[in-house]
Amino acid sequence: MSLVRVHNFSISLDGYGTGEGQSLDSPFGHAGDRLHGWFFQTRTFRRMHGREGDTGGDTGVDDAMARTWSDGIGAEIMGRNKFGPQRGPWQDHEWQGWWGPEPVFRTPVFVLTHHPRPTLEMAGGTTFHFLDATPEEALRQAREAADGKDVRIGGGPSTVRAFLAADLIDHLHVVVVPIVLGRGERLWDGLEGLEQRFRTEAVTSPSGVTHLTFTRR
Amino acid sequence: MSLVRVHNFSISLDGYGTGEGQSLDSPFGHAGDRLHGWFFQTRTFRRMHGREGDTGGDTGVDDAMARTWSDGIGAEIMGRNKFGPQRGPWQDHEWQGWWGPEPVFRTPVFVLTHHPRPTLEMAGGTTFHFLDATPEEALRQAREAADGKDVRIGGGPSTVRAFLAADLIDHLHVVVVPIVLGRGERLWDGLEGLEQRFRTEAVTSPSGVTHLTFTRR
Repeated sequence: MSLVRVHNFSISLDGYGTGEGQSLDSPFGHAGDRLHGWFFQTRTFRRMHGREGDTGGDTGVDDAMARTWSDGIGAEIMGRNKFGPQRGPWQDHEWQGWWGPEPVFRTPVFVLTHHPRPTLEMAGGTTFHFLDATPEEALRQAREAADGKDVRIGGGPSTVRAFLAADLIDHLHVVVVPIVLGRGERLWDGLEGLEQRFRTEAVTSPSGVTHLTFTRR
Repeated sequence: MSLVRVHNFSISLDGYGTGEGQSLDSPFGHAGDRLHGWFFQTRTFRRMHGREGDTGGDTGVDDAMARTWSDGIGAEIMGRNKFGPQRGPWQDHEWQGWWGPEPVFRTPVFVLTHHPRPTLEMAGGTTFHFLDATPEEALRQAREAADGKDVRIGGGPSTVRAFLAADLIDHLHVVVVPIVLGRGERLWDGLEGLEQRFRTEAVTSPSGVTHLTFTRR
């Protein structure tokens, strides 16, 4: 069965998945890179963003958790704010995401936006589709594109929250980073009682973060 | 040096230290006993609320963390909502707290309230003083009463938050319970950057909770 999964979704102690003030230079606003420091140290990150045979980076529990990100994934759905810092109607179509000419996804990626634009074919197998749709409809299209494989919900917080609220998520991996961000966009809002639909597991890492895993009951 | 400490302070994933709708039957509102299930299983809890020689209850990491609650403590400061469910002027002075005739504290306890009332001498060494004061002034009085020992800030969330905001806390032990409460009173609000003043440590327990320890740098 094709599952819907969230991986490596980092939040602060106070539940913020991104800070305030996203811009071209600050994809996560005032959070900077503090939410993802644990990830940058992993071998998985180095291989995603460097050479495939890179043997650097840490290989402990952070890496083991990070690594499952791509296993069996056939498509991703992301919110527009994960794709870029622009708001409202596109001024032009120059922006092609934060990830350069060969994005890390290597699958179809469905970007939820009220302002659709033409599909973007990137090098390395990533195709960005732009979609004004409900979570249910976006998932239907992503599943079709995934051809039997799993669908990843890539973020940001409001996108993950919308899919959780619609009870569409089967596997949720959240990484709690021991910082208090104070402002930004929260993950847990409006999800009272979420834990009743999942088995939960928590494990800490020497890097100081706590990995939470929610698996659908 | 006399330290200011918080122990066994349980919060939900979304940061609530208590639920909504406190009443005589529900000290933690709609949270019920879900925030403290981990604690009820410990030997420390059983000894606090039962016989001193009780050898029942779990003795793993939850118990080890819970147990440090009373070591070297000479006084506690708590908010009025920890003391009881009443709001506004006292209708009478019948209410003597949730803890029965012999409360677990066994030290002077300073209850912060805009409506002071006469001191309550309880069995077993607990004395409730009622105080309309700033965190700084309350701490001054509690330190004097503690006679060189440490002072515990007992909660609830707004009281702990006020002492953290005033930078008066030296040791903070928070227990994150894997539930999403959705409403109630949050611990972390207004504390952006708190982690910069502390070394932090996280450890999970087989009970599913995560113990966070903040130690002043």
